[in-house]
Amino acid sequence: MFSKILIANRGEIALRILRACRELGIRTVAVHSTADTDAMYVRLADEAVCIGPPASRDSYLNVAAILSAATITGADAIHPGYGFLSENADFAETVEAHGITFIGPTAEHIRMMGDKITAKTTMMALGVPLVPGSDGALENLEQAREVAARVGYPVLIKAAAGGGGRGMKVAPTEADLEEAWSVARTEARAAFGNDEVYLEKYLDKPRHIELQIMADTHGNVVHFGERDCSLQRRHQKLLEEAGSPALTARQRDDIGAIATSALTKLGYRNAGTLEFLYQDGQFCFIEMNTRLQVEHPVTEMVCDVDLVREQIRIAAGEPIGYSQSDIKFSGHAIECRINAEDPQTFMPTPGTITVYHPPGGLGVRIDSALYAGYRVPPYYDSMIAKLIVRAPTRLEAIERMRRALDEFVIEGVKTVIPLHRKILEDPQFRKGDYTIHWLENFVARQQEKN
Amino acid sequence: MFSKILIANRGEIALRILRACRELGIRTVAVHSTADTDAMYVRLADEAVCIGPPASRDSYLNVAAILSAATITGADAIHPGYGFLSENADFAETVEAHGITFIGPTAEHIRMMGDKITAKTTMMALGVPLVPGSDGALENLEQAREVAARVGYPVLIKAAAGGGGRGMKVAPTEADLEEAWSVARTEARAAFGNDEVYLEKYLDKPRHIELQIMADTHGNVVHFGERDCSLQRRHQKLLEEAGSPALTARQRDDIGAIATSALTKLGYRNAGTLEFLYQDGQFCFIEMNTRLQVEHPVTEMVCDVDLVREQIRIAAGEPIGYSQSDIKFSGHAIECRINAEDPQTFMPTPGTITVYHPPGGLGVRIDSALYAGYRVPPYYDSMIAKLIVRAPTRLEAIERMRRALDEFVIEGVKTVIPLHRKILEDPQFRKGDYTIHWLENFVARQQEKN
Repeated sequence: MFSKILIANRGEIALRILRACRELGIRTVAVHSTADTDAMYVRLADEAVCIGPPASRDSYLNVAAILSAATITGADAIHPGYGFLSENADFAETVEAHGITFIGPTAEHIRMMGDKITAKTTMMALGVPLVPGSDGALENLEQAREVAARVGYPVLIKAAAGGGGRGMKVAPTEADLEEAWSVARTEARAAFGNDEVYLEKYLDKPRHIELQIMADTHGNVVHFGERDCSLQRRHQKLLEEAGSPALTARQRDDIGAIATSALTKLGYRNAGTLEFLYQDGQFCFIEMNTRLQVEHPVTEMVCDVDLVREQIRIAAGEPIGYSQSDIKFSGHAIECRINAEDPQTFMPTPGTITVYHPPGGLGVRIDSALYAGYRVPPYYDSMIAKLIVRAPTRLEAIERMRRALDEFVIEGVKTVIPLHRKILEDPQFRKGDYTIHWLENFVARQQEKN
Repeated sequence: MFSKILIANRGEIALRILRACRELGIRTVAVHSTADTDAMYVRLADEAVCIGPPASRDSYLNVAAILSAATITGADAIHPGYGFLSENADFAETVEAHGITFIGPTAEHIRMMGDKITAKTTMMALGVPLVPGSDGALENLEQAREVAARVGYPVLIKAAAGGGGRGMKVAPTEADLEEAWSVARTEARAAFGNDEVYLEKYLDKPRHIELQIMADTHGNVVHFGERDCSLQRRHQKLLEEAGSPALTARQRDDIGAIATSALTKLGYRNAGTLEFLYQDGQFCFIEMNTRLQVEHPVTEMVCDVDLVREQIRIAAGEPIGYSQSDIKFSGHAIECRINAEDPQTFMPTPGTITVYHPPGGLGVRIDSALYAGYRVPPYYDSMIAKLIVRAPTRLEAIERMRRALDEFVIEGVKTVIPLHRKILEDPQFRKGDYTIHWLENFVARQQEKN
């Protein structure tokens, strides 16, 4: 096992990793910018090294400074957390070249999944379903008809050379196909000088469902079920659940078997997340994140697993030590991301926390680096805390989250807590009846009311 | 279901009950003395009623004031918490006579278990084991020998009329029995004018193990396993665990079956705890608590149950709704009671909390009514917070508790946190090798060191 881990991150995730290290008896090195000198993770780490000025590129993205800190302190492993250098293949490679273990997958796999096209073709070859459609460009309308009949309407005709929504037409039914075909081709020719088009099933009400994978260096791969992260605003997740209200245990098992089989063939190692669009029983792979996710706690709560501990154990060469059938899913968990943002305008609200009082009691977890007197710096992500609850059922988890949000006191900066309260009261949310478009519409309705 | 519950208590347990009510959608009435006007449970309750001056007898034990508060606010049930009026049969009776539901057992059962002799004879008749020994006074030495051989050495010869340790002699082996017999009789005659003696197995290294029971009004009784509460100082529990490091699952099942059978025959209802001395595989009933216990959270953490919710549901007439085999024990939980006491002298340290920052993260629960700026009043119990952790194994739970204690910041008053840290580092504690005498000895050794 490692004796000292450098945590190449900041904020709540640095504290999260520090906690796992503490419980494993591993010493910790915090790195921080000059803006984070007073951060809680810095205070709690065994050692701390300043790696540069506030701007991320000069500190948390400063590979040379982070490697120096690791060398000086004698760290034998680096945990990158999420964001920053966590999906930087060069960084992983450089770390390993210095004889320090990178707690994550190989540089090769990071690189492969970082290229979204390569990721899709790789996953497809390994048996993971993508959005169904034509194999490349269509030869004629007749072929478009055949493919559309196979994947089912509505379908999307897209310019092969396309982008930015140009040369893209939806055909809701077969009657609309011919017109969509010719309009898309005309637009494509005009926009790109190339009228090649292909066809995909159009997902009009998809959910964002992702699968947590863990693989060791001995060929064992398991999954810890899914998270429903459909509640997004501008591609930023706001509230996540495990499991998804849309999935049955059977569906989870099925997609889990496909994903673990694919990653076994790939020889993947450490934590990874396969992201899917999901609609009408179909999973369509969109990308893979080769790191810990912000929303990993909901999985921890329903699977009774410490994912960071598992990452560290696996990076140290330990086998997973249990099999898929040992992983049980119990209860329901919800995470609310608490961002220092105006809940109406979503403008970041950096400033000093004057009062901080987190909720407590049964089934409530706080992952936060806040404290009274802490200054939320303006340089980084606005997420300042995660409030996670677990309860036997989804409705009980919703009620627990509501009472926890009611207890949560953060004064000095505005946060999105009022928005979470409203979401949790919404009848449609409570039914679990939402898609990736739901939150944007909900927010628009709230803004109209005000 | 109730629409409004009055919480006849204060501090962390008032907040605990309030949280359960919130999650059930039940309105809450807090009652408070003038010393508790600024308490967190008062701030969070839907309504609050001042019931008197600081002294408990004039406020939290003031039946008339509490009943008035319930009547004025239209509460349809009262939860008594622990301590104060929770085991006062007259209070339970009066509450019910006013048409308000008392969330707890019947007055008759509270009264029965409040009388320790009646409790023991009742439980014995229902098949619950007591400390093994003679049935009443012994006729002669020969009979003493027979009983001693049956119960096993060491044994205790005790004056039938005795008390205060007089007329009480231990016989470590059979060779010592005759002398103990005659000394005890001589002392008994001298002290009480009555030389009748009886014999009990002498428990030289007992643990305090208690069993959590829940019974509904439809004849269903289940148990939620045991808690090991052996770590006591002057009969005050300080750290509790679920399960006991000394017990096997089979032993838990066995004593659970005996206890649930007894309480079924008794017609008991709501929550109750059977307390045992336990040694060498033998359970010896000592008393029953007819209320929620301070240490109930460790049970909640390993059984995934909300015991206060269950109490409320049952008091409202709902059946338990699951059977014993549905109750699974998963992982290990530890509770550290955080008392506002000097960790060396155990003198209470009331005062103002200047900084309060509770720990967070995976598997950590805080039941506390503290906040920064709160004044710990000098009138009540010195317990100000409970820190509870759960992890898959006992050793992981110990490590989690250590890191959580390291994160816990309470400034302004001294607390017993430093003592908990030392206990958790002790090799004997870590092995689970302790009795009800362990903590007193440990504290004495610590005091010698200082």
